[in-house]
Formats: sequence, C-alpha cells, structure tokens
Amino acid sequence: MTIPQVQLLLTGNELMSGDVIDTNSAMIAQQFNQIGIEIQRRVTIADNLEKLINEIKSLSLQCDILIINGGLGPTVDDMTAQALAIAANKKIVRNPQAMQHLHAWCKQRNYHLSDENKKQADLPEGCELIANPIGSAVGFKLTLNHCDIFCTPGVPSELKQMLKNEICPQLAQRIPPHLHTKITKLQVFGLGESSIQRLINEQLPNWPQEIELGFRAAIPMIEIKLTSRSRLAEQQVSLWINKLQQLLGDHIIGRDNSKLNQVVVDLLMKKNRKLTCAESCTGGLIASKITQISGASQVFEAGFVTYSNTMKSKLLAVNPNTLAQYGAVSEQTVVAMAIGALQVSQADYAIAVSGVAGPTGGSKDKPVGMVWIAWGSKQNIQTSCLFIPNNRNYFQHFVTYASLDLIRRLLINSTEVPAYIKERQFNPLNTNK
Amino acid sequence: MTIPQVQLLLTGNELMSGDVIDTNSAMIAQQFNQIGIEIQRRVTIADNLEKLINEIKSLSLQCDILIINGGLGPTVDDMTAQALAIAANKKIVRNPQAMQHLHAWCKQRNYHLSDENKKQADLPEGCELIANPIGSAVGFKLTLNHCDIFCTPGVPSELKQMLKNEICPQLAQRIPPHLHTKITKLQVFGLGESSIQRLINEQLPNWPQEIELGFRAAIPMIEIKLTSRSRLAEQQVSLWINKLQQLLGDHIIGRDNSKLNQVVVDLLMKKNRKLTCAESCTGGLIASKITQISGASQVFEAGFVTYSNTMKSKLLAVNPNTLAQYGAVSEQTVVAMAIGALQVSQADYAIAVSGVAGPTGGSKDKPVGMVWIAWGSKQNIQTSCLFIPNNRNYFQHFVTYASLDLIRRLLINSTEVPAYIKERQFNPLNTNK
Repeated sequence: MTIPQVQLLLTGNELMSGDVIDTNSAMIAQQFNQIGIEIQRRVTIADNLEKLINEIKSLSLQCDILIINGGLGPTVDDMTAQALAIAANKKIVRNPQAMQHLHAWCKQRNYHLSDENKKQADLPEGCELIANPIGSAVGFKLTLNHCDIFCTPGVPSELKQMLKNEICPQLAQRIPPHLHTKITKLQVFGLGESSIQRLINEQLPNWPQEIELGFRAAIPMIEIKLTSRSRLAEQQVSLWINKLQQLLGDHIIGRDNSKLNQVVVDLLMKKNRKLTCAESCTGGLIASKITQISGASQVFEAGFVTYSNTMKSKLLAVNPNTLAQYGAVSEQTVVAMAIGALQVSQADYAIAVSGVAGPTGGSKDKPVGMVWIAWGSKQNIQTSCLFIPNNRNYFQHFVTYASLDLIRRLLINSTEVPAYIKERQFNPLNTNK
Repeated sequence: MTIPQVQLLLTGNELMSGDVIDTNSAMIAQQFNQIGIEIQRRVTIADNLEKLINEIKSLSLQCDILIINGGLGPTVDDMTAQALAIAANKKIVRNPQAMQHLHAWCKQRNYHLSDENKKQADLPEGCELIANPIGSAVGFKLTLNHCDIFCTPGVPSELKQMLKNEICPQLAQRIPPHLHTKITKLQVFGLGESSIQRLINEQLPNWPQEIELGFRAAIPMIEIKLTSRSRLAEQQVSLWINKLQQLLGDHIIGRDNSKLNQVVVDLLMKKNRKLTCAESCTGGLIASKITQISGASQVFEAGFVTYSNTMKSKLLAVNPNTLAQYGAVSEQTVVAMAIGALQVSQADYAIAVSGVAGPTGGSKDKPVGMVWIAWGSKQNIQTSCLFIPNNRNYFQHFVTYASLDLIRRLLINSTEVPAYIKERQFNPLNTNK
C-alpha cells in the first residue's frame, strides 16, 4: 500500500479569463494535506469539450486519483459529465438517484424543475454518486484506466461538503496506516516568518525531522503548521508545541483557525468587560473587526471615529490646547482620546490610535507610517509609538491588529513586550532619510 | 499572422499545498485579455527540478508562448533558471547585466550582496533579461522548440511591472491588426448578473455579436465587460455603452476600475460637502470604507458606532422613549440617529443604519436580515427598510455598499428608485415562514 498519486483538473472559462480567482485548489489541497495526501499537479482549462476529453484521457494515465472540479452546472458550458462519458466510452443516462435529489431540492425551495436542471441528472452510465447536501448538482465518481475520477462542483461551499463528507473519508482509507498524518496549527501575530524560523533554529536546534514545520502568511498574521506523518510522530507534537509556546510566548494568539478579533471578544465576554475604541487613522476598522463577531454587542457599546481635531475635542473632550501644542499624532492626544472614550462609553478598556496613514500628510517629524497607540483602563493607560511605513491599506490593517493584540495581552495579563513594539518602535533618527 | 497559443506554468510548493491562493494567474489572464490573448491552459506543480524540466520540455512543444511564474528567488527551492537551462541544453552563466542590477538594488537599500542573492544572476546562457524595477530577481526570456519562454517572479507586484512594461507590449506586436482587442468595463451596484442579462435580452435584443459581453461578480458589485476584437467593433462600443447606460441608469457607478467608496469621496470633494455616519449593525464598516480612501479627511470628520441603545441616546441624542416605543431597529430610530449625527458632526450629509445582522438576535417582527437605513441632509432625510437574509458578513457588506450608493445617488441628484430598494424591500408578510 502506497500513497496514491493525485492530480487535479479544473475547468471554467471564468478561471482562464482571470474573472474568478481559483480558491478551490487551495481548499482541496488543504483538506487532502490533513489526511496526508499531496497533490502532484494541477491543470486548468476552459470549458471546451474536446480539450476536456483529451485532458481526462491523458491525466487518467498519469495518476491514481483525479479530482475534476467545475462544469457540473445546468448550462451549456457545463460539460464534465459528457466529457467523462466520452473519454471512458460510456453512455450518458438519466440517473434516477440524481433525479430524486433534484426533485427534493426543487420541492424544498418551491422551484419548478426545469429541463436545464434535469440535465444535471444526465451522468455517465455506471458512475457512483457523491451527495450534494446544499446545491442541485450531485457529484460522481467513475474509474478509467485504473484511475478513480471524482467529479465535483465549482461552487466552493458545495465542494467543501463533498470533500468533508465523502471524498476525504474515502481517500483516507487508501493511506497506509504507518503514514497517518496529523496537522496542528498555531496562529501568531507580531513575529515574521523569518524571525520565527531563526528563533527555532537558534533555540530549538533539535527540532525533530518527523514533525514538518510550515508557515503561511495571512497578512498581518502568520500561521505555523506542524505536520506529523506517523502515530509515533503525532505523540511528540504536543511536547514540541509546548516548546514553541515557551519560545514564542504570547505572540501565539491561538490554535487551529483562531482569529484575533474572535479571541478578543471571547476574552471580554469571559471576563464580563467592555471595550471601546477611539480611531483616527484606522477610521473605523478596529470597530468593524470587533463587530464582525456575532455577539459583540455584549462587549462593545460604542466606537468613535474622530478624524478631525474638532471632533476629537467635541466627542472625546481632547483639550484643544493639547492638539495645538502636541498635534493630533502625539502621545498626549491618544491618551486624552482613550480617557475621553472611556468616560463617554463607560467601557472598561479603550484603544485609541492616531497616525499618518499616507500616502500624503507626512512631515519630517511625523512621517507617513508613524502612529501613536494608547490602550488600557482608567487606572492604567499605556502608550507606544510605532513606525509602519508601508502602504495605506497595510498600515491601517497592521495598526488595527496591533491594537486588538495589545488589548488581548492586557486581558491575559501578559508581562511580555511584544516583538513589534521593540522592532517597529518609532525612532525619529531612523526616518530622516 | 495568427494569435499565438499561450500556456502558463506555475511553480511553488506553497501553491500546491494550498498555503497560498494563486492570484497571479488571474492577473496574467486579465492583462493578456486586454491585448486579445487568451491563455489556453495552465499547469501548476511543486518546486521539483525533474518535474520542472519535463513540464518545460513538454509545454514548449504545445504552444508559441510559455509564461513560467515563480522559482526566481534566492533559495534552494527556486530552480526555474536551472530547469530551463537543462531543458534547453544551455549552460548556466553569471549574467553581468543581472549582477549589475543586484549591485544597484542592494546599494539602494544598504544591503550586503550575499552569495544567495548572487544566485539570482546565474541564468541560462543567451537569455534576454526582463527588468524588475522593484525586486532583486530579474526575469528572462529564452526560445526553445520555437516557443518563447518568459520566466517571471512569483511576487505579484514584481510580476505586474514586468507584464506591463515588457511582456504585454512584446506580445501585443504579435497580434494581427485586424484582431485588435479592446476591453471596456462598467461597475454596477444593486443589480444582479441575471437581472442585467435579462434586461439586455429584453431591451437590447440586437446586441451586436462582435461586442462580447461578460460579467464578473465582485460581491456585492458586478463588473460588466465589453470586449471588441476589431477596430470596426471598437468604434461601436461607445454607442452600446450609451444604450447600457440608458438601460441600467444610475446602477452604473463608473467605468474601468471605479470603486464605490472612491466615487463617493470624489463627489463629496467636488461638491465641497462633508459626510458622517451613525452605524449600529455595520459597526464601523461604512466609516472604514470611506477612510480607506486617501484624502478622506477633507470630507469626513466623524463617524459614530453606536451599538447599544444607551450610546444611541448619549452620542446621537436619540430620545430613549423612541427606542423604548419603536425599538433600535425602526424608522424612528434611524432618522433620529441621522439627525443626531448631523447635529454633532456639523456634516452636510449623514447615513444611519440599524438592523439585525445575525445569526442571533432576530425575532418574528424583526428577523435576521432586516435593516433600516436613513440618509440625507437636515433638510431632507429619506428612509428605507431592506431585507438581506444572508450571512452576517454579506449583510454587513451589502448594507455598507447600499448606504454609500444611496449617498452617491443623492450627490448626483438621481431620481431613480434603485432596484435593490424595490426588490429587497422588507415586507413583514414575506418573512413569516
């Protein structure tokens, strides 16, 4: 028993024209990686019957498993079933089980079952169905040249269900038990990929070969991926996760698919505390990240987007003299914004930010990328001045994530100084270029 | 002279593992479509020398132009130059011009030129360079089996420059003049793809075959693409754009790559007017879309995220009796929020929204997806109640775009009722399921 060779064939005019970015390939690869399968190669072509037939014939000779994605819809440019039937020299027949699914699907939605929709039940004779719990198009499986061909829909949510419910469980059985794979993920904020790699090289030189280390940048977050490919290796993973946790400390915001905004909202809920934010340069992005989370209303009552000096004074009672003397981008101003926001909202914690997002508005003393952040409670407000001289979009996102991270660290009573506070500290001497 | 056959070869472990979503293919396809070239097929493989050599050999026999993307970096898994040299039976030599580029690149950044970096100047003998105005890796071109092979970097911003500056201009010369292609785009909000298609079928039945019509959904926007493939067809495009403008009216927010938030900020600037927003269910997303635009500070001084009833009263002076009698999601409340925001901010126009984003918090009378929007000036505040029973993320984005669109329509003095106000109007009778 060896690991099967898997290839991927994607079909779609919208993929070839660039009108749609292919996210399905990554989804399939990630799901397959979880069970220890790597995709060897993927081929993408437009919706063209002849080309589709040729690719299917040729790919079926080059691998053990072929996943075809796309072309299962009701329209004329959906021709996967027809192409596979011709390639495999099978007739197209109306599949009773697929018809049953279509009837049930339409009935549930009060839709009329049209002739176009019925086409979705016309499948190669002898194929096995793959259930679609969401959409109208069933998936199907047929073997050609000893290659198992799985035909799946292009709609990501439907594909996801089929992978989870049927395809991955089937393929997992074809993985030799001694090659059992497990992936554990850690979500990190504030340390770059190269810094993490260097820390591991220096501090954990005995990192075991049998636990593969991978990184994925989901800017501004980094995901660390630990892959073990045997039961024996899997038993060691938690030990090495502990070592990573000691090494990276509170830069790890959580496991699996943890999200920073969700973590912050969860911590606030658990501690029964409320947060507010006073935003200048992030212009509402911090508030919107918090309120993306369902249930945020329990921990967030108000946010202030005070873009002008007048509004900083009017809404947050920042003394106009403070603004005149130190400017909007200053420690004095963000502290006053934080205190004002706490006062008005009666929240327990506040974040206040003021900076130069750019590309215009910078000066020699206060260049584009400079930002003051204040965070804390009435009893204790901390401040930091960072320098993020990237583009406006990156700047706004980085400042938003850093703000949420600083509140998270406060809520877990972290005593660490985050790497980004050290490395990205604004130093006026460094920017006079 | 015929249109060259073009294929694409992508290389990268991160692409095969699904750690990175391939956006470069779409970028290349879109740029090529602009000059009339369609990509026939694309193949994606991991960073493996032997596989890379085999693919290059095989693909060079199947097309006139092969674009290789990825594998130009300084690390050991970057092996495009080596693979191409072996496939083409050429020596690898240190290219003086590439070395010069590396020296200049490092000097400008005060970097030491390391041996790893010098590897990026080791290229197949006889290749032509493609300049990289941003990064350290130069691109290069070599002909094999009468196929012109262009090797490009995986970093999107570097690829973009090479496409624009060198590759597209070179390829454009290989397009027969009578097949000259021009693409014109219109950005639409508030009408779905199928509605637009139906309107065109019904109202413009003589739509000319020589102007191809395409759609791209960039939720919640729709892009309409008109492609003409001859000078003669191109001359007709503006006529048909006029007809589309009559048909779709103010649902068209702009041409080319117009963005709704940019259009709104531009209109406010032009009219020297200021906007404010009072957000409940969108939680700061409207403010953050406006402040994404550089220069927004000229037209936007303050935004209010009033998530709780208390804050609606405290910050926006919504009468607590109004909240008690009609509830937070009511016409009375959003009107009071809009008036309060105008009063406090002294802005000329306001948007106020309050709704049930879900998935929790819905009731029979006020189900998940229901939202009240108020917009206008002190002299004239309009309201509408919509029903967007999708997920939280879609709801928040749709409401944000609809709010910006309603302000845009006000600023252009539109008298039309937008389709989404008609089609998505909340009707309590329709939701009692």
